[in-house]
Amino acid sequence: MKKQLEFILEIDKEKNIFRQTHLSEHGRNENDAEHAWHIAIMAYLLKEYSNEKVDIGRVMIMCLIHDIVEIDAGDTYAYDIEGMKTKKAREDAAKERIYSLLPDDQKEELQRIFDEFEEGKTPEAKFAHAMDNLQPLLLNTSNNGSDWKEHHAAAEQVYERHRKTKEGSLRLFELTDAIIKEHIKNGNIKVE
Amino acid sequence: MKKQLEFILEIDKEKNIFRQTHLSEHGRNENDAEHAWHIAIMAYLLKEYSNEKVDIGRVMIMCLIHDIVEIDAGDTYAYDIEGMKTKKAREDAAKERIYSLLPDDQKEELQRIFDEFEEGKTPEAKFAHAMDNLQPLLLNTSNNGSDWKEHHAAAEQVYERHRKTKEGSLRLFELTDAIIKEHIKNGNIKVE
Repeated sequence: MKKQLEFILEIDKEKNIFRQTHLSEHGRNENDAEHAWHIAIMAYLLKEYSNEKVDIGRVMIMCLIHDIVEIDAGDTYAYDIEGMKTKKAREDAAKERIYSLLPDDQKEELQRIFDEFEEGKTPEAKFAHAMDNLQPLLLNTSNNGSDWKEHHAAAEQVYERHRKTKEGSLRLFELTDAIIKEHIKNGNIKVE
Repeated sequence: MKKQLEFILEIDKEKNIFRQTHLSEHGRNENDAEHAWHIAIMAYLLKEYSNEKVDIGRVMIMCLIHDIVEIDAGDTYAYDIEGMKTKKAREDAAKERIYSLLPDDQKEELQRIFDEFEEGKTPEAKFAHAMDNLQPLLLNTSNNGSDWKEHHAAAEQVYERHRKTKEGSLRLFELTDAIIKEHIKNGNIKVE
């Protein structure tokens, strides 16, 4: 139990890892713990739109833990090309250090869930990715696309980022596509 | 889907509801979304200590949504005697307004999960309460009991607050008891 409590205290630090996304009503930057909480609830509420039947308990724990590695590796903004090159190596080292705080069986279990998410092949992982993509899009569109404007996001990049949503949910990709098109029209997303 | 998305955006506000508990390493006050994220993961990791077998998916969603009513009702500090008197009425009104944003079937489902938590009778609700109590205790003890000191907490109050942990987990109540005793000894919790 001592090891479990140590891990529980360690992950408290995820509340200080801030993302590029801003909270609704033009709020402050969001942190990873808040984001994970939000997408786990979204998964529960939107599961009817998953392309394939999912074990929702597994999707939820996947959503909850998917960013723990960022305690060490930091948040890599989806449109940060240089950062993206080293992301995997930084996250692998973090995965080893942080999950090693747990007893061996739980270390293996949580690393397996994290790997499943990263590989994105199971119905649960695909749906979790759809949530991970959709949530910042919803916040951003509620803020009139200010995050895209700030980062001069290009349509091609935005579509590339949201590509995986289709694998988890065709219905939610339709929604994504409609939102992106609206922001292209408004000039918040550039077309090159 | 429009109603679901409206609810999802509404609960973003939970990230701005701050609690009395401070993050580890003498950090800032914690908000409700971070707290809910933390206890949902704790439930998953500590489920072996539940007195009764639990449906962990149900415990997790219960943990994730249990403080949504505080968007309207605010956080009521466990040792705020006046606030505690009006808590139920404020939370009932919030429960009606916020969950009514959802389609009827999901409104009923989430209100039922919230009520189950509040009633605290099922194994899932008892274990969720144990997590809800244990998490601030762990943060507080990591900060040398500073939240208790600040609020001049008395042993009787602290034990009353953690009473329910026993119903969810005898093993985690033993841990709780040992932590409280240590802080009584150190003078962080008063004995009257």
